[in-house]
Amino acid sequence: MVSHMGLVGLGKMGHNMRERLRRAGIEVTGYDPRPEVSDVESLADLVAALPGPRRVVWVMVPAGEPTRGVVTELGGLLGDGDVVVEGGNSHYPEDQARAAELAERGIGYVDVGVSGGIWGLENGYGLMCGGDAAHVELLMPVFDALRPEGPRDEGFVHAGNVGAGHFAKMVHNGIEYGLMQAYAEGYELLSAKTDVVTDVHGTMRAWKRGTVVRSWLLDLMVKALEEDPRLAAIDDWVADSGEGRWTVDEAIDNAVPLPVISAALFARFASRQDDSPAMKAVAALRQQFGGHATKPSAE
Amino acid sequence: MVSHMGLVGLGKMGHNMRERLRRAGIEVTGYDPRPEVSDVESLADLVAALPGPRRVVWVMVPAGEPTRGVVTELGGLLGDGDVVVEGGNSHYPEDQARAAELAERGIGYVDVGVSGGIWGLENGYGLMCGGDAAHVELLMPVFDALRPEGPRDEGFVHAGNVGAGHFAKMVHNGIEYGLMQAYAEGYELLSAKTDVVTDVHGTMRAWKRGTVVRSWLLDLMVKALEEDPRLAAIDDWVADSGEGRWTVDEAIDNAVPLPVISAALFARFASRQDDSPAMKAVAALRQQFGGHATKPSAE
Amino acid sequence: MVSHMGLVGLGKMGHNMRERLRRAGIEVTGYDPRPEVSDVESLADLVAALPGPRRVVWVMVPAGEPTRGVVTELGGLLGDGDVVVEGGNSHYPEDQARAAELAERGIGYVDVGVSGGIWGLENGYGLMCGGDAAHVELLMPVFDALRPEGPRDEGFVHAGNVGAGHFAKMVHNGIEYGLMQAYAEGYELLSAKTDVVTDVHGTMRAWKRGTVVRSWLLDLMVKALEEDPRLAAIDDWVADSGEGRWTVDEAIDNAVPLPVISAALFARFASRQDDSPAMKAVAALRQQFGGHATKPSAE
Amino acid sequence: MVSHMGLVGLGKMGHNMRERLRRAGIEVTGYDPRPEVSDVESLADLVAALPGPRRVVWVMVPAGEPTRGVVTELGGLLGDGDVVVEGGNSHYPEDQARAAELAERGIGYVDVGVSGGIWGLENGYGLMCGGDAAHVELLMPVFDALRPEGPRDEGFVHAGNVGAGHFAKMVHNGIEYGLMQAYAEGYELLSAKTDVVTDVHGTMRAWKRGTVVRSWLLDLMVKALEEDPRLAAIDDWVADSGEGRWTVDEAIDNAVPLPVISAALFARFASRQDDSPAMKAVAALRQQFGGHATKPSAE
Repeated sequence: MVSHMGLVGLGKMGHNMRERLRRAGIEVTGYDPRPEVSDVESLADLVAALPGPRRVVWVMVPAGEPTRGVVTELGGLLGDGDVVVEGGNSHYPEDQARAAELAERGIGYVDVGVSGGIWGLENGYGLMCGGDAAHVELLMPVFDALRPEGPRDEGFVHAGNVGAGHFAKMVHNGIEYGLMQAYAEGYELLSAKTDVVTDVHGTMRAWKRGTVVRSWLLDLMVKALEEDPRLAAIDDWVADSGEGRWTVDEAIDNAVPLPVISAALFARFASRQDDSPAMKAVAALRQQFGGHATKPSAE
Repeated sequence: MVSHMGLVGLGKMGHNMRERLRRAGIEVTGYDPRPEVSDVESLADLVAALPGPRRVVWVMVPAGEPTRGVVTELGGLLGDGDVVVEGGNSHYPEDQARAAELAERGIGYVDVGVSGGIWGLENGYGLMCGGDAAHVELLMPVFDALRPEGPRDEGFVHAGNVGAGHFAKMVHNGIEYGLMQAYAEGYELLSAKTDVVTDVHGTMRAWKRGTVVRSWLLDLMVKALEEDPRLAAIDDWVADSGEGRWTVDEAIDNAVPLPVISAALFARFASRQDDSPAMKAVAALRQQFGGHATKPSAE
Repeated sequence: MVSHMGLVGLGKMGHNMRERLRRAGIEVTGYDPRPEVSDVESLADLVAALPGPRRVVWVMVPAGEPTRGVVTELGGLLGDGDVVVEGGNSHYPEDQARAAELAERGIGYVDVGVSGGIWGLENGYGLMCGGDAAHVELLMPVFDALRPEGPRDEGFVHAGNVGAGHFAKMVHNGIEYGLMQAYAEGYELLSAKTDVVTDVHGTMRAWKRGTVVRSWLLDLMVKALEEDPRLAAIDDWVADSGEGRWTVDEAIDNAVPLPVISAALFARFASRQDDSPAMKAVAALRQQFGGHATKPSAE
Repeated sequence: MVSHMGLVGLGKMGHNMRERLRRAGIEVTGYDPRPEVSDVESLADLVAALPGPRRVVWVMVPAGEPTRGVVTELGGLLGDGDVVVEGGNSHYPEDQARAAELAERGIGYVDVGVSGGIWGLENGYGLMCGGDAAHVELLMPVFDALRPEGPRDEGFVHAGNVGAGHFAKMVHNGIEYGLMQAYAEGYELLSAKTDVVTDVHGTMRAWKRGTVVRSWLLDLMVKALEEDPRLAAIDDWVADSGEGRWTVDEAIDNAVPLPVISAALFARFASRQDDSPAMKAVAALRQQFGGHATKPSAE
């Protein structure tokens, strides 16, 4: 069982996780390229600091190249019986590829989807993991320290083999896109008719208890409206991480209809366009057949 | 302040509400056409049983004709200073019309959106109301008895004038459509890849704490999967009440884009079709231009 | 059979129609409030100019109040056996209401959906009408003059009773929204990858003959790109007339799933928003749970 | 310039193309595994039959493995200066990979998207190609024989380097999905209100001339309704080839919103489900919170 582990990546998520693990009595040696937050000077130092056998290094860096780089470097530093935990947002086929590489050197690999954002330090993190049962068992004290209080199986799942954790997290995030867009559309419709519902913030706050739509996201929506009742300081520009895209790609590969999640994804794409080529084309067509003016000059 | 009120309609919702009100010490005389649940034999008897002045009758019958009928009949039985509460799912312009009719006789009208389903008896009901401040104040003991424990403004709102309660409830239900469809799409995608995520029920259960998608609907989804892990006994046929439709209609009237909520509504329509004329047309087109076989004979 | 008719409304459509009718040898007295295009000074003068019996006045003014006003005024000027033709874009229940009013005075009513835009003068107009067979027969020379060359039933239909013409036109326009958006999305995707397809205009022009997607709208798209290969002078702001909205409303009333047409409608709504309240809400939610920056300051 | 070419794959498309090429005076040696349609017994025989230099073999077999197999085999049979034409529906990155392989042996590669279905024999095929200008020039007599009559650039485009032809065809097919679904939704809405529009077939036929929605797909829709006015013999089950999926995948990779085309794709997925897991989940949720019956027993 793990009592001292390594943690690579001390950004918004990793930093808080180190703190939560330490509060739970787990010794953590953290590495980050920024010396002001790092416990050691290099990945090699981090690995050297860990007691064997069965050393554990949790990787918490951006998906794609950064994660690939760290995991590959760890592959050269760790050895038989050690375990790498990928806690970032890797695409699940990446997990399967990385695990196969590490397996050649006897190094285990567990992928973990971690949900909870900046609130995880206090509330705990929802965890979905994939990998071998033996590796998962080894990591159980770590998972127990990170997950929320309450029954273990309401904040943690060993969802399947390597890749299952990030697959589950990918779907989780796809759902999240849909949920957020649903609340957002409702908010917009309320806001469009303040002659009827005069108190939008109060109305959404009243949904916090007893209603069918109560949720943590709703609580956050209410909090946002408390701080800024018309969201006047918020730009209508919404980023998307890879996971919403992967969710829709995966659905297409499996012939699963995903109208709501894809609509939420496309709304984000559109939110970032200053000028929509598609809508220019529609405007051009209307002008061609109907002699319709494009955008009225008064606007 | 109300200590004895009338309640018309003792179905799934009304029956539970009577019970919750009584537990809170409010005297309730209930009327329902089914004698086995009714406290009195007629609406007239119900009104006669209530102490004046400022009698209160809460109506909890299906929207449309049934509600119109009861409210109109109450208009003939009640008088100046009394208040009718429409707690069903009326379309908000109906509220405004009914209120105007009752106002001619000095009778007040408050519309209340009630959320919480069969769980409201134990958990309390989320309440959104519209009407005059004086009427709402009169009803406050009733609202306090029905709403969930906790801060009043997290389970109750006076959202605006007559119609505001049902407008808020309409939007609430529209959001609900979107939320349900988002979870459902995620469930389907997980279910399509059980070679990766081997434990769908366990995965969704692990989302109950700490994650961004945690919600009461998720809790219910997990409960449904506990009872029937593949939902084998559930038909893929989904009804829709009027409120999802009204939400989209309202959005269209106000030029509010509603891609997610409308997609959820259309998915329900499609779920009830044995045979989709539109998809027959697409199949016919493919056959026309490509000589494509329509449904393979092996199916 | 009609040889001399009245035409009210000499805007973009009406003006061209008068010309096409005259070229076909039909005498037309036109009225418009703008004296420079009008043949007479008032509606009364127009009616007075027409030979009886069975006078025909075609109304070609904007839907809603303007059409209602003209038809009502004509109801006072015309009499038994005369016929009003509503050639604008009235909502079909309006037709049914107007027809019932005129019927009380023995005046017939035919609703006609007219498609073809500014090209109709040269190409002819596609016509869909609703009304009594006797009225339609009376109007046949007018329809034959307006419709395109070719078999009558490929440019004209008597689709049913009063209202059928505008119902058919409403659905026609709903389809049109979907078609335009489909081409527009394809155009945008081509434009996003000019490292692969280096000639967007040439590619779409090559679709004009032989392909499955060839159509009149495609021809117009190519024409627009000929004039402005990147649509640089076109704003991405798209109006919508009522007919797309009515199409979706009608589908909702009939539980018909309309994912494509509704998506096209919502894309237009979104195109006109400077600031999307819904996307502000999504951005606010992301900021709340993830500490995500909203729109990067560099943008 | 090519006067004698090879053609591999004599299915629905290839067979007709051989015929159209021969009618235009181009000598074609065709190979297909089915001896009854094949001109030679093997690919090797086909290559042997072609005059050099700069032999041309057009491949017209299903995308994926079959195409990869044939192209690879041709790579072993052809040599410096020869050209392979991939006329099937390969994904454009496949083209780029195949072209790179063949280039190592001095063999050219041109990808061509071919549209027109079974009507191409008579009407000609819309052609979009990608590759080197010299190869395209060599193939020009072939393209001219296959394309429709009329200006060359209205039925043919050299859209860019290798891959551009199939990229253009992919987008073409994505648009096609959207167009078909738009007509199909309109057809369904008309069919839902035959109390208003009594003649659905006649109405759509009347759109063939003069209207904004006129197109070749509309002509086919009318033809289908002529043969079967209610599409009674057509199953509502719609296949999808890879190209619709690739279109949406590509849009996601490029952050291009594609609400209409994706909705059309998802409608096809849904059309093939006997039982929708997502809608079972929605039904289960409704049952959980509202005690709503799932599918009424009367249905």
